Amino acid sequence: MLIEKNKNVLIVGLGLMGGSYAKGLKKHGFHVCGIARRQDPIDFAIAHDIIDEGYAYTDTDAVSRADILVFALYPKAFKDWINEYQKYLKPGAVITDVTGVKECVVYDIQNILRDDVEFIAAHPMCGREVYGVENSDERMFYGANYIVVPTDKNTDDAIEVCKDLGRLLGVGRISVLSPKEHDRMIGFVSQLTHVIAVSLMTCSDNTHLVDYTGDSFRDLTRIARINDTMWSELFSMNKEALTEQIDVFMKELGSFREMIDKGDIEGMRAKMRLSTERRALFDDKRRPKK
Amino acid sequence: MLIEKNKNVLIVGLGLMGGSYAKGLKKHGFHVCGIARRQDPIDFAIAHDIIDEGYAYTDTDAVSRADILVFALYPKAFKDWINEYQKYLKPGAVITDVTGVKECVVYDIQNILRDDVEFIAAHPMCGREVYGVENSDERMFYGANYIVVPTDKNTDDAIEVCKDLGRLLGVGRISVLSPKEHDRMIGFVSQLTHVIAVSLMTCSDNTHLVDYTGDSFRDLTRIARINDTMWSELFSMNKEALTEQIDVFMKELGSFREMIDKGDIEGMRAKMRLSTERRALFDDKRRPKK
Repeated sequence: MLIEKNKNVLIVGLGLMGGSYAKGLKKHGFHVCGIARRQDPIDFAIAHDIIDEGYAYTDTDAVSRADILVFALYPKAFKDWINEYQKYLKPGAVITDVTGVKECVVYDIQNILRDDVEFIAAHPMCGREVYGVENSDERMFYGANYIVVPTDKNTDDAIEVCKDLGRLLGVGRISVLSPKEHDRMIGFVSQLTHVIAVSLMTCSDNTHLVDYTGDSFRDLTRIARINDTMWSELFSMNKEALTEQIDVFMKELGSFREMIDKGDIEGMRAKMRLSTERRALFDDKRRPKK
Repeated sequence: MLIEKNKNVLIVGLGLMGGSYAKGLKKHGFHVCGIARRQDPIDFAIAHDIIDEGYAYTDTDAVSRADILVFALYPKAFKDWINEYQKYLKPGAVITDVTGVKECVVYDIQNILRDDVEFIAAHPMCGREVYGVENSDERMFYGANYIVVPTDKNTDDAIEVCKDLGRLLGVGRISVLSPKEHDRMIGFVSQLTHVIAVSLMTCSDNTHLVDYTGDSFRDLTRIARINDTMWSELFSMNKEALTEQIDVFMKELGSFREMIDKGDIEGMRAKMRLSTERRALFDDKRRPKK
């Protein structure tokens, strides 16, 4: 490992994800500092030994001491923070993030960032349907996919430090994707699925059906409990890739509908056999249970 | 309970569901006989004490001894069986089933059935992504929704016997719906979700994405491993209700797509808040974990 464990880590945004990073890293010996907008999460995190120190404002002294900074903010807030506070960063500091979209974040940040610090983007693919540092849980990383998203501006060392963070958190597979590849992939496997889940819940007033649902409906709509502020921002920032994926999916759904309407049993069965075969691959490669 | 536990139960179709019925009922003291098309499941079920006796053909003597018959066959095979073998049924026998569609099955069966036996339809809303009596598990019923689907032809006694079967299996909520209500409901909560899951897997070659999926994609596609023979038949037999539900869902998905495309953040957030609120109801009323 390239990363040294006596370093100062600063978590900016001490919610579910920031708190989980704090928990996961603190136990390896890092000095972990947290910054939040309110005092409550700081008090909670101190009381539960999640961080070593914390501030309900951007403490410039804490910023200047940080060797590694993890941004667990919404994309726009992240850019604003860099604009305002980057002058306090320690030369050589490595910045990473957890943002769910990359193309419209990574280049902007790298373009405005000082030359003597480095931003290497990352996306740990895990989460919960709950919020806040009080629900943070470092086990959410165990076995999860962890994507490092470098550009031409990134150094091999920073990429390695970013991978080390994933390893220390206990992630499963670590991949490297370009921002464009990342956003296309996430448009399909994450954003499209959330759009579908939300649409399933909103397409008709189904509240009277709550007594009749089996596991399948519950599985498909689990993620319909959604942070509207965060996801509407993520969807907008990945508009092109996401609408393309929705179009591809709707076209397929429409053609399946025609098969049902025409009684094309063989057509349906061929689709089902393909879906069964493809889905089997996912079970073969399944991640360990949390 | 109206049901007497010293009765003879005949399970026709000894697969996953039939085997689970056998297991769940045998432990209450019923004499359980099973009929399958092949010898293997019979041998397995005898060896594992799932049934008391069994036949790889329709043993007319076993049919004539049965007080309660549970049909766990595909819809068309069920009708064929009744046509061919109902002459051997014991007067007063009560027939039930597990079929996932009702309108195009229940009336047909009741119309051809002898007057001195009674068919009361049921649908236990549970299942597994695996098949065969060797995977049968009576615990799949625990806490599951169980729908009794009577028509005007059914007697109160038969409805009560059918509910008793559900109670003995340990189901959760027992509901009564008309065939039409049942099929509309199932078109939405079960069939539409399966169509979506299959379409997600088939809409593009996503096999290279297997390493990047998080829990959300896995949840939405778990049911994409699907029995193509059974589900294509179920979809066809509920064509009208299912295509209507697909249309409603596609319209909603299309309007969400427009919001993304236009950057209508407030519109998206309103949809997400509605989906979150509705989905929360489901968690409040969640069934016990299997």
